[in-house]
Amino acid sequence: MSILEIFRSREKKANSAAIARERLQIIVAHERNGQHTTPDYLPAMKQDILNVVRKYVQVEQDHVSITFENQQDVSILELNVTLPDND
Amino acid sequence: MSILEIFRSREKKANSAAIARERLQIIVAHERNGQHTTPDYLPAMKQDILNVVRKYVQVEQDHVSITFENQQDVSILELNVTLPDND
Repeated sequence: MSILEIFRSREKKANSAAIARERLQIIVAHERNGQHTTPDYLPAMKQDILNVVRKYVQVEQDHVSITFENQQDVSILELNVTLPDND
Repeated sequence: MSILEIFRSREKKANSAAIARERLQIIVAHERNGQHTTPDYLPAMKQDILNVVRKYVQVEQDHVSITFENQQDVSILELNVTLPDND
């Protein structure tokens, strides 16, 4: 819930920037409890999620930026998609 | 990037809670620029994303919580999946 609030305030700031582009941001966080060592499937999941996005919007390869962070307790996959300007 | 940092610090706090469960958190934010009115496909995307998650992990229906927020400039879909304890 509180993550959402932070998210929202960030979005507002981004919107007030000079060039306001329509975009889609997807964050997947896999939080492990430290006791189990589970396989990390986020890198594989990346392509599946992009395929889902492509069902709904036209996505050009160079309008997608993907980052992946892997730490002991949490892996975070972030996809940023800039959407095409429809007239 | 900075969203990631916030995310990470939140995750650490969650991990230090009494019961540390393995979980997957997915946030999809559709940021509109206010000039265009685009169809909101996040509610429809929800099921597709859950299907992707199910490819990789066993998800029980009552271990999924979904929230959706719709505002003028941004729609945010949040999925929280508590993963089963393996052995």
